[in-house]
Amino acid sequence: MKKKSAPQADAAPAPKPRKKTPRAETAESMASRQREIAVSEFFLKNRHLLGFDSPRRALLTAVKEAVDNSLDACEEAGIVPEIAVDVQQIAESRFRVTVTDNGPGIVKAQIPKIFAKLLYGSKFHRLRMSRGQQGIGISAAGMYGQLTTGAATRILSKVKNAKAAHSLAVQIDTKSNKPVILSDEEVDWRPAFQAVEETGASVGEAAVYAHGTSVAIEMEAQYQRGKQSVDEFVKQCAIVNPHLTLHYRLALLPKPEPRVQKPEAEKTESRPPQMEEHRVSYVRALKDMPVIPREIMPHPHGVELGLLMQMLKDTEARTLRSALASDFSRVSDQTALQICERAGLNPKANPTRVAHQEAESLYRAIQETKLMRPPTDCLSPIGEAQIVAGLQKEIKADFYTAVTREPEVYRGNPFQIEVGLAYARPEETKAAEDMGQEEPIRLLRFANRVPLLYQPGACAITKAVIGVNWKAYGLNQPKGALPLGPLVLMVHMASVWVPFTSESKDAVASYEEILAEMTLALQECGRRLSVFLNKRRRDMEAARKRSYIELYIPHLALGLKDILGFSDTEKARVERELKNMLEKTHVEVG
Amino acid sequence: MKKKSAPQADAAPAPKPRKKTPRAETAESMASRQREIAVSEFFLKNRHLLGFDSPRRALLTAVKEAVDNSLDACEEAGIVPEIAVDVQQIAESRFRVTVTDNGPGIVKAQIPKIFAKLLYGSKFHRLRMSRGQQGIGISAAGMYGQLTTGAATRILSKVKNAKAAHSLAVQIDTKSNKPVILSDEEVDWRPAFQAVEETGASVGEAAVYAHGTSVAIEMEAQYQRGKQSVDEFVKQCAIVNPHLTLHYRLALLPKPEPRVQKPEAEKTESRPPQMEEHRVSYVRALKDMPVIPREIMPHPHGVELGLLMQMLKDTEARTLRSALASDFSRVSDQTALQICERAGLNPKANPTRVAHQEAESLYRAIQETKLMRPPTDCLSPIGEAQIVAGLQKEIKADFYTAVTREPEVYRGNPFQIEVGLAYARPEETKAAEDMGQEEPIRLLRFANRVPLLYQPGACAITKAVIGVNWKAYGLNQPKGALPLGPLVLMVHMASVWVPFTSESKDAVASYEEILAEMTLALQECGRRLSVFLNKRRRDMEAARKRSYIELYIPHLALGLKDILGFSDTEKARVERELKNMLEKTHVEVG
Repeated sequence: MKKKSAPQADAAPAPKPRKKTPRAETAESMASRQREIAVSEFFLKNRHLLGFDSPRRALLTAVKEAVDNSLDACEEAGIVPEIAVDVQQIAESRFRVTVTDNGPGIVKAQIPKIFAKLLYGSKFHRLRMSRGQQGIGISAAGMYGQLTTGAATRILSKVKNAKAAHSLAVQIDTKSNKPVILSDEEVDWRPAFQAVEETGASVGEAAVYAHGTSVAIEMEAQYQRGKQSVDEFVKQCAIVNPHLTLHYRLALLPKPEPRVQKPEAEKTESRPPQMEEHRVSYVRALKDMPVIPREIMPHPHGVELGLLMQMLKDTEARTLRSALASDFSRVSDQTALQICERAGLNPKANPTRVAHQEAESLYRAIQETKLMRPPTDCLSPIGEAQIVAGLQKEIKADFYTAVTREPEVYRGNPFQIEVGLAYARPEETKAAEDMGQEEPIRLLRFANRVPLLYQPGACAITKAVIGVNWKAYGLNQPKGALPLGPLVLMVHMASVWVPFTSESKDAVASYEEILAEMTLALQECGRRLSVFLNKRRRDMEAARKRSYIELYIPHLALGLKDILGFSDTEKARVERELKNMLEKTHVEVG
Repeated sequence: MKKKSAPQADAAPAPKPRKKTPRAETAESMASRQREIAVSEFFLKNRHLLGFDSPRRALLTAVKEAVDNSLDACEEAGIVPEIAVDVQQIAESRFRVTVTDNGPGIVKAQIPKIFAKLLYGSKFHRLRMSRGQQGIGISAAGMYGQLTTGAATRILSKVKNAKAAHSLAVQIDTKSNKPVILSDEEVDWRPAFQAVEETGASVGEAAVYAHGTSVAIEMEAQYQRGKQSVDEFVKQCAIVNPHLTLHYRLALLPKPEPRVQKPEAEKTESRPPQMEEHRVSYVRALKDMPVIPREIMPHPHGVELGLLMQMLKDTEARTLRSALASDFSRVSDQTALQICERAGLNPKANPTRVAHQEAESLYRAIQETKLMRPPTDCLSPIGEAQIVAGLQKEIKADFYTAVTREPEVYRGNPFQIEVGLAYARPEETKAAEDMGQEEPIRLLRFANRVPLLYQPGACAITKAVIGVNWKAYGLNQPKGALPLGPLVLMVHMASVWVPFTSESKDAVASYEEILAEMTLALQECGRRLSVFLNKRRRDMEAARKRSYIELYIPHLALGLKDILGFSDTEKARVERELKNMLEKTHVEVG
């Protein structure tokens, strides 16, 4: 133990200076080493930021990114999604992830960039809710595969109404963040699908559609059951996407047998190992697609001074008034005029000139002008009925409720909070409660319909739940911790831009406006829960007291018999009638 | 309250479908919207990732990035650093941060890129410990200033031995991640400095040097005292950089007076408001610079298969053997030969060919080969004596100790963990302990000599401290929480690449190897603390028992007097001798 650590003395002497210290730099020598860093180099070194810091998490992240893309593509194209997720172990620490969808397919020229270039996509620049937003995810998964196995990302895709499909193998040149195409073939759709299946992957029913995309990535990974597993991810996906049919196959190599010396003859190397296979299909509950959200313009109250200046410089409008009315949401021509007047600016002024000289007064005038909240059709919340239905389908409980709040805004981005709640097994709990052994509630976190499984501690959702005083609603809650009890709580944030705490998109950043909305939704659900719990408590209390009184009815009747000289028949009648009365009245006994 | 939330019904009906839903997309229409995302656009939208999510944190982050750069530059140039940090409030929610150093200065051509281009720098591509590593920080601070105020980053810099200094104002074109130069002048050094001072900023003593850099950024910000303030940052900087002299000035506008109706005459608008000014100088404790760390090659055991293939493709060596020996650390010519033999490869093979065909067997052979741990001179730990000195200077305590572990490796990156500890005020504590009101210990986190003030919950350091069983070392510790007691604990991670959990560099990612080293260092410090605490406890116990016995000595003497018929003088003598005996023996009474 002491080998590595310093001697017992409280402070060892300073380390000896080494003899050959590197030469001191000058401004010139330092300048010669300055260079640009490709974003792919950056994330290769920082791959934990993308969710690839452990082999276990890498597997989940890869599946998540591929499924997000598939769902987004299907929904944008108005196709009811059917997705096959295949996770196949091909060596002790190596897996192949194949995700196949019935989406619109991808135009060939875009395939290399979408799958092998970081920061490339169609979702970043628009204000509209979608699962993907950064243009990093799937390329990062491919880059991780390439880094750990040297293998390429393989894509098979067919666009609707196209004659042929395309099969490509791509890698990312990490020094330049550019795609490298290793192979590129025009192929027939069905045979190509069969070829994918021949690699062992399950592609579900997607082949029956005449369009879609299949992506396969080989990577160093590890599979482990539990709360942060691919199993849990696809299950939660099905809860918040009731229009999704998802086929999931997990194929694991047999576990290495304990090292027993076997006779030589039994070592039959030729037989391939029998895979341990798990299959589950989540069939859609409804065929209706969620409403396709609409793209919006930025809301003026969320635009900072510097950004306002940039927008005025870039506008295509000729006058300040029309720039305000055309480039922002919730600014009518009339409101634009008001803003100009309040700022003391000419509505016909050149926006570019305003950007340089009078932006600050314009900025202040905008802040002082009352505006409608941003339009809400850029969001597609799950809906209260759908949340309750999802919970009922998945979780056995005695009480369900859900709240979908009206949209709010943080930094100009509309967002909407939804909370669902399922409370179960009150009897068993009572005992656990008494024994101080209650478990923390189960908290399910979602952002734009994507389950968040990692980093609960860093997430605004967890923070909001901990911040609510659950004791007021009848639950126990240790200080600074999740409440206790047989409760499943789900919180969903829908937004045109979810502020994740890292590129791996596992936790929502704690913007005040977001926390406030979550708190209000949680409190509303809490109140409803408390009404239910109070009623149940009163009912149980009443039942307890009634059964207590019932116990005494025979004695009461006996007493009456003695005092009033009742016959046995009269006594029995009194007893019966007392019981009836008690049952009918249901008086508040407490 | 009900206005925003759904009706009391447990689940409201699904939202009505809107009539005008956006048109469904096709593969072709989606392709037309795909585009590249500039890394600056990405971080502008995700500025919370860079530490600019609140005005308060923004202020700290800007100071931190500028100071990191100044310290790195001074040390690389072998200049004992003297830095002035000036934080000046210029409007209610607007500050100007000016950081001035006596560093080597920056070559003019590099200034725009260093201060107005993300992912540009000299530290990313080398394996050597430094504060900055990403090439993002200072440009991000400027970008945030630009976004919130529209102002440019102003830089004044003079290179050693150059005739003139350069004064530049730069902004970042966020759509292309390229610098825009707004003004660019050749100026005289001293007058230019005076000009900076005339803006109200304190530039410390830096002007007396004939070289250095001063950077000023205006931004929306907020100042608040406390654990996450600039005050705390500069103080902790001084602790871990004993060779640094740092002048800190904070100038705040007077707080708006409570709105009392004053007589008209008193409203003297012409007089400028009196600034509330705080100044503190941390003077260096030692003139010796830390050893300049040396750049190293990657260690073979930390190189993944995909990266190995890339390195073999890129090598300038002609043979596999020489590629192994020249491009990796700790691979001698002899070891390279061994690896080739183990992999069954010809040492004279063309590395590029091996990259494509035999990389896997080479990879396996490398893993199986025992290698020396990476060289340690790429790191510059603080040192045990220096840590203890730093703690003693700053924190009054009864017991100090520090452990600097030997370097270890995670993912091929050498790193080194240091832990320091100061334990104080035992008497007062005892009472608090009895009353169950002990406070959690104070944990100071550092990475490459930079204090980490945000996101303690996400940090491996916090995780490691919580994971240690402090009860075994004599402290109370609630389950899953920091231990309690009058203890200041500092943990420093030095590494050629600190794996931060986000670009804001506030928390260290939880790699297993890092957690293990932290745990060992903490345990060693814990053991030393426990020796101290046990001794103190025994001493106190002995003292308590002795005073108890002392109480009875007069009675004992009186008894002896009665029984043995002692005179008063004899009684006094016995009393005295009993006391002497007690004092001399110091026997273990317990």
